[in-house]
Amino acid sequence: MSGDYLLPRIASPEDPLRLAVLISGGGSGLRALLRYQSDGPRNHVTSLVISDLKSAGGLSHASDLEIHNLAIPLSQDLKGLERRKEHEDRIMEALVSNDIEMVVLSGYMRILTPTFVAEWKGRLVNIHPSLLPEFPGAHAQRDAINARVKVSGCTVHFVDEGVDTGTIIEQRSVPVLPGDTVETLTQRIKAVEHELYPKVLDDISSGRIST
Amino acid sequence: MSGDYLLPRIASPEDPLRLAVLISGGGSGLRALLRYQSDGPRNHVTSLVISDLKSAGGLSHASDLEIHNLAIPLSQDLKGLERRKEHEDRIMEALVSNDIEMVVLSGYMRILTPTFVAEWKGRLVNIHPSLLPEFPGAHAQRDAINARVKVSGCTVHFVDEGVDTGTIIEQRSVPVLPGDTVETLTQRIKAVEHELYPKVLDDISSGRIST
Repeated sequence: MSGDYLLPRIASPEDPLRLAVLISGGGSGLRALLRYQSDGPRNHVTSLVISDLKSAGGLSHASDLEIHNLAIPLSQDLKGLERRKEHEDRIMEALVSNDIEMVVLSGYMRILTPTFVAEWKGRLVNIHPSLLPEFPGAHAQRDAINARVKVSGCTVHFVDEGVDTGTIIEQRSVPVLPGDTVETLTQRIKAVEHELYPKVLDDISSGRIST
Repeated sequence: MSGDYLLPRIASPEDPLRLAVLISGGGSGLRALLRYQSDGPRNHVTSLVISDLKSAGGLSHASDLEIHNLAIPLSQDLKGLERRKEHEDRIMEALVSNDIEMVVLSGYMRILTPTFVAEWKGRLVNIHPSLLPEFPGAHAQRDAINARVKVSGCTVHFVDEGVDTGTIIEQRSVPVLPGDTVETLTQRIKAVEHELYPKVLDDISSGRIST
């Protein structure tokens, strides 16, 4: 692993790694993670959930378990880079004030700036619905179907300054079946993602990911 | 599938599809195919084996079973495109004189010319040691290891005018393990290839591959 990744501390069930989960939508991955965390002693806990959209249904999964959650939408008054910076400043403020140690992107649909990434590199992970480096970007399942591949999958990776280019931590394959639509393939990949992501967070928070 | 692929006839064990297998090396894939074909009634039979190298050890797998086999090396006297054309003309001659219906590339390390491909398109298949379109070319396993992917695999595809770009027929995933070298990954992929390729030839010769 490149030297500029700074991994989080090795945690324990008594003193679990404090995660913030960033979402934009329904938060099915968040729900799976919360279920996993409440299912037994884990080295990580979800301490904060942030959505960039007020409408994100996933916030309710956090509310249901009385986990601190907030929508941090983009400013209506600013534009371009200034707006992105102000948005990330407010996210950063929430992360710091909640003693967050690691940021977990789970269907978060915004690209983070290099400034934000630099601050969290090694403690910022994403899950992507393809076998990276194949099919990066926002339309991975559509691209897989169009390429007529028979195997796709999902990838958990550290986030770096690029889009879906950070060091790969773990991957799982998923079959692409005849007649698959973007929707059916997305659901099949999601089922595997919901298993994989918590396991990778176990590995990271237990020091099983080395450089 | 694109309209310019012409698939082979649907065959039967009584009148199996006559395959030519093209190799360049040890022919472990050929050996696995021959074993599969001799193991039960199949809709395909290997009627001819051609190597572009006299030294290819794989020719002996054909000899052992008294299957017609020949080395068709490049001419020493010609160069460039003229040499390639003369080489393929001799291959084509062998295919025609042996009533070959389909060409199976199995570790054949030469790129076929568009003229040859056009003649066999839809009846010319290759197996490649990656999940195409990721990692095309002659160093797929090295490229996978360098990209630090955790999942790679193999792909059977129709050959078109590009390099490893033809329509994908079937794929299998293979894990990439910590400490893998090109050699260990190659062996793990080969084991899966030896299962997959005969099955795909079953599918093609039985008419289960549709356009």
